Amino acid sequence: MAQLISSSSSLTIFSRNKPYLKPFNQCSMSFSTSAACNSSTYPFRKLFLQRQKPRKSLVLQVSAVSTSIETPVQTSSGEPSKPQRVMVIGGDGYCGWATALHLSKKGYEVAIVDNLIRRLFDHQLGLDSLTPISSIQNRIHCWKSLTGKSIELYIGDICDFEFLTETFKSFEPDAVVHFGEQRSAPYSMIDRPRAVFTQQNNVIGTLNVLFAIKEFREQCHLVKLGTMGEYGTPNIDIEEGYITITHNGRTDTLPYPKQASSFYHLSKVHDSHNIAFTCKAWGIRATDLNQGVVYGVRTDATAMHEELCNRFDYDGIFGTALNRFCVQAAVGHPLTVYGKGGQTRGYLDIRDTVQCVELAIANPANPGEFRVFNQFTEQFSVNQLAALVTKAGGKLGLNVETITVPNPRVEAEEHYYNAKHTKLVELGLKPHLLSDSLLDSLLNFAIQYKDRVDRKQIMPSVSWRKIGVKPKTVTA
Amino acid sequence: MAQLISSSSSLTIFSRNKPYLKPFNQCSMSFSTSAACNSSTYPFRKLFLQRQKPRKSLVLQVSAVSTSIETPVQTSSGEPSKPQRVMVIGGDGYCGWATALHLSKKGYEVAIVDNLIRRLFDHQLGLDSLTPISSIQNRIHCWKSLTGKSIELYIGDICDFEFLTETFKSFEPDAVVHFGEQRSAPYSMIDRPRAVFTQQNNVIGTLNVLFAIKEFREQCHLVKLGTMGEYGTPNIDIEEGYITITHNGRTDTLPYPKQASSFYHLSKVHDSHNIAFTCKAWGIRATDLNQGVVYGVRTDATAMHEELCNRFDYDGIFGTALNRFCVQAAVGHPLTVYGKGGQTRGYLDIRDTVQCVELAIANPANPGEFRVFNQFTEQFSVNQLAALVTKAGGKLGLNVETITVPNPRVEAEEHYYNAKHTKLVELGLKPHLLSDSLLDSLLNFAIQYKDRVDRKQIMPSVSWRKIGVKPKTVTA
Repeated sequence: MAQLISSSSSLTIFSRNKPYLKPFNQCSMSFSTSAACNSSTYPFRKLFLQRQKPRKSLVLQVSAVSTSIETPVQTSSGEPSKPQRVMVIGGDGYCGWATALHLSKKGYEVAIVDNLIRRLFDHQLGLDSLTPISSIQNRIHCWKSLTGKSIELYIGDICDFEFLTETFKSFEPDAVVHFGEQRSAPYSMIDRPRAVFTQQNNVIGTLNVLFAIKEFREQCHLVKLGTMGEYGTPNIDIEEGYITITHNGRTDTLPYPKQASSFYHLSKVHDSHNIAFTCKAWGIRATDLNQGVVYGVRTDATAMHEELCNRFDYDGIFGTALNRFCVQAAVGHPLTVYGKGGQTRGYLDIRDTVQCVELAIANPANPGEFRVFNQFTEQFSVNQLAALVTKAGGKLGLNVETITVPNPRVEAEEHYYNAKHTKLVELGLKPHLLSDSLLDSLLNFAIQYKDRVDRKQIMPSVSWRKIGVKPKTVTA
Repeated sequence: MAQLISSSSSLTIFSRNKPYLKPFNQCSMSFSTSAACNSSTYPFRKLFLQRQKPRKSLVLQVSAVSTSIETPVQTSSGEPSKPQRVMVIGGDGYCGWATALHLSKKGYEVAIVDNLIRRLFDHQLGLDSLTPISSIQNRIHCWKSLTGKSIELYIGDICDFEFLTETFKSFEPDAVVHFGEQRSAPYSMIDRPRAVFTQQNNVIGTLNVLFAIKEFREQCHLVKLGTMGEYGTPNIDIEEGYITITHNGRTDTLPYPKQASSFYHLSKVHDSHNIAFTCKAWGIRATDLNQGVVYGVRTDATAMHEELCNRFDYDGIFGTALNRFCVQAAVGHPLTVYGKGGQTRGYLDIRDTVQCVELAIANPANPGEFRVFNQFTEQFSVNQLAALVTKAGGKLGLNVETITVPNPRVEAEEHYYNAKHTKLVELGLKPHLLSDSLLDSLLNFAIQYKDRVDRKQIMPSVSWRKIGVKPKTVTA
């Protein structure tokens, strides 16, 4: 079953054999059914339903932030790009939601494709975002009310190729931004079923996107979220995707060697190889954004209304280092440094995530090109982050302590790390470097919501070495 | 449903909910049921069935080849290895069957694990081995009759972890030789469903094997069949798994960059990365045999009786260059060179495949070591192979012609190629280099069976660029 829901007051439901009506009986919205099957040869039936009156929850308070339509960023040639149709897969997630709104705000026609399974993970694991987040339907309706801009919503699983086919035929994207993967390393290391799920879901989903582009939108630019974790921590400089090697008197430029260290990170390595092949074999145009660790929660667009608020994960499974430290400081929990704390990674503000994706779309890869950008702005070790949060917390009167906990991961805790990240800057990225004011803002944000913190979720609960074969029942 | 069948006259059937008896009603064998459930906590029921009389088809003609038990090869330390228990996954296939018999002949305790799906592929695609091949049950029974040696048989899918668990608990392998993957590049490029199947089947199957080793046999040595195709055709020398790179004044030894060029080859790249991670994280001991193109059909063991005869694929999907050329020469079909014919690869005789696997088992990787051997003995271009077959055919009075057909693949047709392959020689490999007598033997073999050749299967039927999203109904 796959659903397509547009915020522009039409709602389309796909069902293989028969109209799928059950959700509407359970729905608080009031609809009048007004239409019937379409003439497509595709074996799905379409139902169009007209919304009769606004939902109570959508009486919105518009914030003071400007909602004016902006001009899409210019291409490197200096000419303004025409409004493009961008499909954001995984658009209900942390990076995806911020990106979808940013692109919509910037004048792109945006569709979100998401199966909402990230919300299911929270239910199953007993986790929750620090920030209360609205349903995707309410989020999109709020955005429409504030800005007049529609975001189409397709709810379904990209591993279901029939569903994905319908989204491509219906939306006809010029670019696909693909965030739609299980994105947590610890989640992939909980147990065998989740390890298998992560690789199967991520690899097959991406394969399907590649096939859909080839079959239905061959000029469509794939902007795929990879991770800096694909490279691991080699003892030489990390380049952006490729490295020129001179060996035994001959020279070639080859894909940079990959040394991922979780089943999640490995799934991204697999994706990268698959995408590279299809660029060569089919002429796919693709940009792989090897993203660092993202921190922060607000962007210009998500800050416009509380119903647009992004998720903020602080738990041991989905929370990432800096965000988690801020929550720990806010609630008086010691900052948890895994092992020696010398683990160094690339980091970026979520406001730069959305900026980078926009730059990639505005300056697409050429047909057949597999382009790799390292998407981060600064490097920090875990110890450096802990020191920064301790200092910022002190200024707010918080007594921030740090403890060392046994490292649940298998990784080098002291190592060389120097990763290049110039290509996005060359395209125009203006980084939001980690500042005292951002840390101050993040800490205050965490303090604002500290009553929502479940302290049991803070400590690491997943061990790389102890992963077992049976489904693990994770309880809070 | 998963079945475990031992040639030693016991037969065990697993069924989740109830005894699965139907196959026996259809079976020509006569059994008396003699036992009942075992006491395992595992929710399967076991039935032991005692064979009453020999099957008609198993009145065997023993060939003149010696069937004496040989001593297992010596380890590098010079001490004879104790008989080991080796599980051969994919042991009904081309390389797997030859390997299983070779190891059994050499004194190893052998179990074959196979879901027999390779035979299903033939049915579905309208293909057949040049050589008539017996059922796996008859093959194993013939081997037992000839040599007195039992090979246990577990029929099921390693993607089914419950089945795999049972095989590990039952057989308790010291080494697992993993041939159990969809192994044809053209098959993986037929259509989207088969591309997805290939990656899902191969990657998840291997993940399951890794988890099974970790959980049940942590000292078990994984000998995994990779492919030289993982490396692609870089413009520098190909090393064995790793390359030492000096870059910006620093040096590290990293995994050799991978540039695979089919969804099949990519699945092996994914496997390699997954295995490398588990060696590091869990201490798995693994040897990745990056095998070249295998030719030939007979080994000492398979030559012992016609019922042990190995499969010989000559079709455009499963057939590989040299074997296919020999069949083409035998039936008067021009040799089909794809494109310019400068494609150069590593090749080896199937007698060396079995020798290499035995050497890897006898000299296992250390705990935590991910060892990579390039498993081939000589390099040839397609044009060189065509010239060799033309010459050998001429000596037999065959008029061998060569035609150029459009290359169905996306690959360099003229390129540098120099791949290292010294590690197996250092362990003791004595290569069977491609000789006039071997070519003569292969051609005579093809002539012997030429009435079984389906000429419609010879030409390439799969295009790398034209692969579509819908299931392709391939007809002969």
